Amino acid sequence: SQTTPSIYEIAVLPGDGIGVEVMQACVALLDAAQKIDHGPQLKMTRYDAGAQHYAKHGEALPERTLDAARAAHAVLFGAMGWPNVRYPDGTEPIPQLDLRMALDLYAGVRPIRWFAGLPKVLTDSRAENIDFVLVREQTEGLFYARGKGSVNEAGESYDTMQITRRGTDRVSRFAFKLAEQRKRRRGQANVTCVDKANVFTSMAFFREVFNDAAKDFSGISFDHAYVDAMALTMIKKPWALDVMVTENMFGDILSDLAAGLIGGMGMAPSADVGDDHGLFQPAHGTAPDIAGQDKANPGAMFLSGAMMLDWLADRHDQPELEQRARLIESALETVLGDGAVRPMEYGGSAGTKAMTEAVIAALPQAF
Amino acid sequence: SQTTPSIYEIAVLPGDGIGVEVMQACVALLDAAQKIDHGPQLKMTRYDAGAQHYAKHGEALPERTLDAARAAHAVLFGAMGWPNVRYPDGTEPIPQLDLRMALDLYAGVRPIRWFAGLPKVLTDSRAENIDFVLVREQTEGLFYARGKGSVNEAGESYDTMQITRRGTDRVSRFAFKLAEQRKRRRGQANVTCVDKANVFTSMAFFREVFNDAAKDFSGISFDHAYVDAMALTMIKKPWALDVMVTENMFGDILSDLAAGLIGGMGMAPSADVGDDHGLFQPAHGTAPDIAGQDKANPGAMFLSGAMMLDWLADRHDQPELEQRARLIESALETVLGDGAVRPMEYGGSAGTKAMTEAVIAALPQAF
Ligand SMILES: CC(C)[C@H](C(=O)O)[C@@H](O)C(=O)O
Ligand SMILES: CC(C)[C@H](C(=O)O)[C@@H](O)C(=O)O
Repeated sequence: SQTTPSIYEIAVLPGDGIGVEVMQACVALLDAAQKIDHGPQLKMTRYDAGAQHYAKHGEALPERTLDAARAAHAVLFGAMGWPNVRYPDGTEPIPQLDLRMALDLYAGVRPIRWFAGLPKVLTDSRAENIDFVLVREQTEGLFYARGKGSVNEAGESYDTMQITRRGTDRVSRFAFKLAEQRKRRRGQANVTCVDKANVFTSMAFFREVFNDAAKDFSGISFDHAYVDAMALTMIKKPWALDVMVTENMFGDILSDLAAGLIGGMGMAPSADVGDDHGLFQPAHGTAPDIAGQDKANPGAMFLSGAMMLDWLADRHDQPELEQRARLIESALETVLGDGAVRPMEYGGSAGTKAMTEAVIAALPQAF
Repeated sequence: SQTTPSIYEIAVLPGDGIGVEVMQACVALLDAAQKIDHGPQLKMTRYDAGAQHYAKHGEALPERTLDAARAAHAVLFGAMGWPNVRYPDGTEPIPQLDLRMALDLYAGVRPIRWFAGLPKVLTDSRAENIDFVLVREQTEGLFYARGKGSVNEAGESYDTMQITRRGTDRVSRFAFKLAEQRKRRRGQANVTCVDKANVFTSMAFFREVFNDAAKDFSGISFDHAYVDAMALTMIKKPWALDVMVTENMFGDILSDLAAGLIGGMGMAPSADVGDDHGLFQPAHGTAPDIAGQDKANPGAMFLSGAMMLDWLADRHDQPELEQRARLIESALETVLGDGAVRPMEYGGSAGTKAMTEAVIAALPQAF
């Protein structure tokens, strides 16, 4: 673990659309929480990035922002992307993907947990026990092809997926370490390798490297699933899932599906973690249809903020930050569970600001 | 359309595991139905193929079987694959993938429809209106890489996704024609292009070619979705979906997810269709855990048989075969809706044979 700073520098990248709104909400909440516990303080500084910034200034991720992200103790990220803002090849400016590469954020951690107040999506009552984490490899896989493709004169386009021993090994180990943490809390843990080893050599290799890594974690059980079968399992018995690790593109698809099980992206946080950096963002996008209208649910952003506190606590041996993470989670759960203040996303009338005020008001009781 | 034969030659490939059982059931049902309506007769002939055949004889798809499939009016396919039967590179012998290439079966048609007697998976009552079709491109995409991959000495493996104008154009047109058929029956239809055009040049190209094809189908509306967002939409409001068209690997994942919405693979049929050939198979696998125990639900196989009859009817201008397809579907729906005979898959006690007998018994009333 790292040295313990007296102040934590947080690079705040609100981005586009509702990213700006939920970020404002999250900064307010983090500020309120650190005023209450008087523990280690975060200094949150905003930086430009995003599709709208690209549209105006020709760059999606300014050098200054990248430098700040690199220098910070952690990055807090809203959402980026905007309709019809495109690069010449037809793809979009997506700074979060650039940051994953630039900061080597190889593990995309996407926890999905049901708690009281969230929509009940599945009829099976066991769905209340949904509590799993998807670990998405984020520096290779199919996304290796990003920015490299073209269309040839014969009307063909090729994009290449890369699977390396190093990339698969480190993300597998990450998943097993996460499982060890969960085992300490829950008494048991399992890691599922999600691949398509039946069809692709690269995926058979992914499975092989995963199996090799597993040998170093004898306390954790593991198994395998094909990605198509896993898409079905996520609907049929998601309560049986624990930690999963998978290729970049597969993880992208499965994590959205997973969020559907708790009613959508509104309560789906994520952490993009590497050995040297961590970036925390809600799994949702910029939602242009509701942007600027105080309608967005800041829940996923709040939970991402809590994930950041947990990661900082672990990295810098600072249990007070972990307590603050629990404080924020409890306050959110209290508000949701109580039901008096309900996000518009779930049919309630509370906008971003009302949700934020309610969660901040619930902080003291959460102690 | 083709000439009208007096007898339809059907190449029957039961394959492995429960493939054998549900195929036996389906042949019995198709026989019973053609004895009732005295319409055009199918001559069904069995051929070897599959993982177990590979394990014994060193080939998964014998030349003789491939020739028969090529010569037949249609191919009826059970399921193939078996645990621990692997090629030297770690992938599995999967004759259905070979056949898709050999017979140029570029459109994987995967309809998902809820009807009375199927499990209710989603809490939202609108889920009863689920009725959509996923069209999966099946001759290129990521599956282009199958059999081509390797692992180099640096510990890297690469698999390349291919998107061509020709391949995307024909599958897009297929989807639009399917939408036209649905529009005739239902008054409206929409095609959604499911891609990842924001990240990959090949996928931006897929969308562009799809948009070009759309111009020839002015009566059909269309839109676009990113594959990750579609995975969420399939859970949040699947009743709003109609026809979708997508890349090979994406279609593989989404079709399993889709089957989850109606309780699993037990009622998920599929058609693999090209310009010259058609192959019909349940979406499920060989289910080694229940194989040989008369436990498999033959429903998806029955519905695949009905899809075959529909395809033959359309291709050979033979409305009697279409009527027979409706007969089979109605008989199955009657049995399921009635509930007295319920598949084990849904918590009932009816095995493969009991289900088959019940559906055959319901055929006469279905007229
Ligand atoms: C915005 C998009 C490119 C991104 C991705 O595909 O990784 C997002 O879907 C995510 O899951 O973080
Ligand atoms: C068996 C498997 C290789 C196959 C595929 O991936 O195409 C199956 O999942 C399917 O959907 O037809």
